[in-house]
Amino acid sequence: MKIAVLGTGMVGQNLAQVLAAKGHEVMIGTRDVGQALQYKKPNGFGMPGFGVWVEDKPHIHVGTYAQSISFGDLIINATNGNASIEALRMGKADLAGNKVLIDLGNKLQPLPGSMPKSLADDSHSLGEEIQSTFANLRVVKTLNTMNTYVMSDPSTVAGDSTVFVCGNDAQAKATVTSLLGEFGWKDIIDLGDIKGSRGVEMILPLWLRLLGSLGGAKPFNFKVVR
Amino acid sequence: MKIAVLGTGMVGQNLAQVLAAKGHEVMIGTRDVGQALQYKKPNGFGMPGFGVWVEDKPHIHVGTYAQSISFGDLIINATNGNASIEALRMGKADLAGNKVLIDLGNKLQPLPGSMPKSLADDSHSLGEEIQSTFANLRVVKTLNTMNTYVMSDPSTVAGDSTVFVCGNDAQAKATVTSLLGEFGWKDIIDLGDIKGSRGVEMILPLWLRLLGSLGGAKPFNFKVVR
Repeated sequence: MKIAVLGTGMVGQNLAQVLAAKGHEVMIGTRDVGQALQYKKPNGFGMPGFGVWVEDKPHIHVGTYAQSISFGDLIINATNGNASIEALRMGKADLAGNKVLIDLGNKLQPLPGSMPKSLADDSHSLGEEIQSTFANLRVVKTLNTMNTYVMSDPSTVAGDSTVFVCGNDAQAKATVTSLLGEFGWKDIIDLGDIKGSRGVEMILPLWLRLLGSLGGAKPFNFKVVR
Repeated sequence: MKIAVLGTGMVGQNLAQVLAAKGHEVMIGTRDVGQALQYKKPNGFGMPGFGVWVEDKPHIHVGTYAQSISFGDLIINATNGNASIEALRMGKADLAGNKVLIDLGNKLQPLPGSMPKSLADDSHSLGEEIQSTFANLRVVKTLNTMNTYVMSDPSTVAGDSTVFVCGNDAQAKATVTSLLGEFGWKDIIDLGDIKGSRGVEMILPLWLRLLGSLGGAKPFNFKVVR
């Protein structure tokens, strides 16, 4: 499948690489391609900047948001949640037809010297905001409740765990569920329509607390035991 | 231990009964004892009203909020989250000394024909509100992320699952952790100070969605797999 991954950060890099390795044709979308390729400074986790990372990956295309959205049969929003609507506007997502968009973003307000603050509540979510702003897209919210290495390989966690999906279009959810299966997901719970985004986005403060409490040494994820 | 359980609803009834069966001396606290004892109508789940339920339980004391708070070495807030501050005010909790209070409440706004709406966000939680209003108490937030039968018996769920605790006082958390052990809890994660209440209260919208998605037939709970 032709997949557009919007965002050149750690999440975008990892998903693009894993999807390409699984045989998909991938384009990473960014605001300004020239600028992104010049970004060679390692990030806070010591990972190479995008311009270095991409050097030995000629099979991964790089394009603007608009080129990527036009390229992909499926679009993955891996941009910073606070900038996602703007990125999709720049990418003319309103003209993309009824493509499936996976939103795995979270709106987090950085706070100096403290955990970031989640801006989701039981009236607002990024998933719903994307769906209502780009009514043509078929938005599926998923994968936002874990780190990116767990997203693309659930066996990273020492035990069976759960991924949630929600969205208004059953066929879009089936497409996404199939892609999740390629990543290795077995326990996929359908939470219903896109309003379920509130539930999965509101889990972030607990997730961030757990990251602190568990010491961050081992990846973790939630399992709905039943 | 002498334990006050504030609230005569399903949660209060269940916890009072289980704690009494485990050998604790229990008083259920309510706004108006006479009125509570006259309440004999079954609830929406077909369970007997408090006045009927209490008839064959002479070993469980019933008192006002003030009598119960004065009685208990440990206080459990099992009142409706929207009325908890008022109930504690009526019970003169500010004069209770530095007793340990377990808060398992959630602030949920009922919506006609729809799931209730969580009022918690990443700036507000009931646990913090109780702690800041009654600075003398040592508030421990726990058990609010599951149904009451799972609270008092985690083996109700088909598999090992997790309970969270948070609070500002380490000794209070140790007391509560010991009580959780009596219920059978093994995987108890300390989320740090009382601000962790935001995380566990914000999980409610996901919990309610899951209740719908899973059909409500089997009890469920979250496990932090790591």
